[in-house]
Parts: sequence; structure tokens; C-alpha cells
Amino acid sequence: MSTAELTLTERPGKDAACCAPLVREGIRPAAAADLARTFKALGDPARVQLLSLVAAHEGAEACVCDLTEPVGLAQPTVSHHLKILVDAGLLTREKRGRWAYYAVVPGALDRLGALLTESTVP
Amino acid sequence: MSTAELTLTERPGKDAACCAPLVREGIRPAAAADLARTFKALGDPARVQLLSLVAAHEGAEACVCDLTEPVGLAQPTVSHHLKILVDAGLLTREKRGRWAYYAVVPGALDRLGALLTESTVP
Repeated sequence: MSTAELTLTERPGKDAACCAPLVREGIRPAAAADLARTFKALGDPARVQLLSLVAAHEGAEACVCDLTEPVGLAQPTVSHHLKILVDAGLLTREKRGRWAYYAVVPGALDRLGALLTESTVP
Repeated sequence: MSTAELTLTERPGKDAACCAPLVREGIRPAAAADLARTFKALGDPARVQLLSLVAAHEGAEACVCDLTEPVGLAQPTVSHHLKILVDAGLLTREKRGRWAYYAVVPGALDRLGALLTESTVP
């Protein structure tokens, strides 16, 4: 066994860095809680389907009247799920006449990934 | 009020397309359930912090021994959260000697966004 292999099997000393160093700070607890809330909004199959369905419409915008039938849920239930996606910053909602129209916030999901993996040092 | 505005306030007829058409299919229910499970894995502040912390280490890899103290949780709790992130396909785990090392799966988060918003037509 080489010295390098031996080193890996030894418990690092209290002051020794056993592994790769931190190259930046991790996310702050308050920001982690915010992000977790957004991810939680997507932690439901019906909401994943609804976001995907809105994104699949021309211009990434859909009328609520076109969303209920494909997901097989009652309109109040669909509206409840859509509200959670709006509150999470993933969709916008605009009332036009009788109907509400939902649009995907461009880049919202990409931003989540970036927030998670990029520097949070002020 | 213009004709266009009037049209928007009328309930669309049974056969009329009131809104933007579908340009592709939405995600299939089974795929939506899979994605929701992955997002649910991130719906917890401790797991968001842990993923961010692993990503903040050089090479986006960290020893479990460097993760417990920053999140202020006991090692069994941290290992439990890390297992959920591994099962969700967001981290990989490699045992080297006494310690387990966790690495971020490159592009895993970006892929989630793409799966949600891209075509699912076979």
C-alpha cells in the first residue's frame, strides 16, 4: 500500500485538512430556507405537471382553462397548486377578463441551480 | 372598449381555442412523479445547505467529516440527509478508507430544469 493510500485511511488530525478545502462559503441558512421553500413547491407531481404544461404552451403562457383537463384535477385544486408555483416565483399570473393566464418566469429554475452552487460571499 | 378587449372577456366557446396552443406535450405523469421526488429532496433547508457546501469545496467534492460542523447537525443526521441527496441523483458517494466523500453530480440541477420545460414527446 502506498503512502498516499495509507493517508486516506487515517483519521485526519484535529488541525489537519483531510480533504479538499472550501473555495467559497456555502449558502447562508436564511437563503437555504428560502430555496428549500421554492424546491418544496416543486416537490409535488401535480405542480411539476402544471409547470411543464404551462411551459409547453406557445410563449410559455397558458390559460387556467386549458390546464385543468390535462392534469385531471378540479379547477380549485389546480388554482391552489398554481398559486403555490406563483408564490415560489416560478410562474406569473395575470387576470385578463374572466380567465387567469399563467406564464413561466424565464430562467427561474436555472437561477435556483446557480444560487445553490455559486458563491454566497457578500 | 375594442373588439379585441371584448373577446378576452368572453368565455371561449367549447370548440374555440381561447389561448396559446400547445407546442409540445407536457411531462408524463410517471416522469412528473420522479421529478417531484428529486425536488422534494431539495425541499429541506439542511439538504440545500449540504448540497451548497459540497459544491463550495474544491472540485465540488467534500468529506463527510467537513460537513457536520458547518450545518450544526449530528453526523448521523447529516448522513441521512446526504443519502437522500444521493438517492435523488444530486450527489455521488464514494467511501475511501474511513470516510465517505460526496461530490456534486455535474449538471444535475440544470437537467431538472430542462426535463421540466423541454419536449417529452417520444
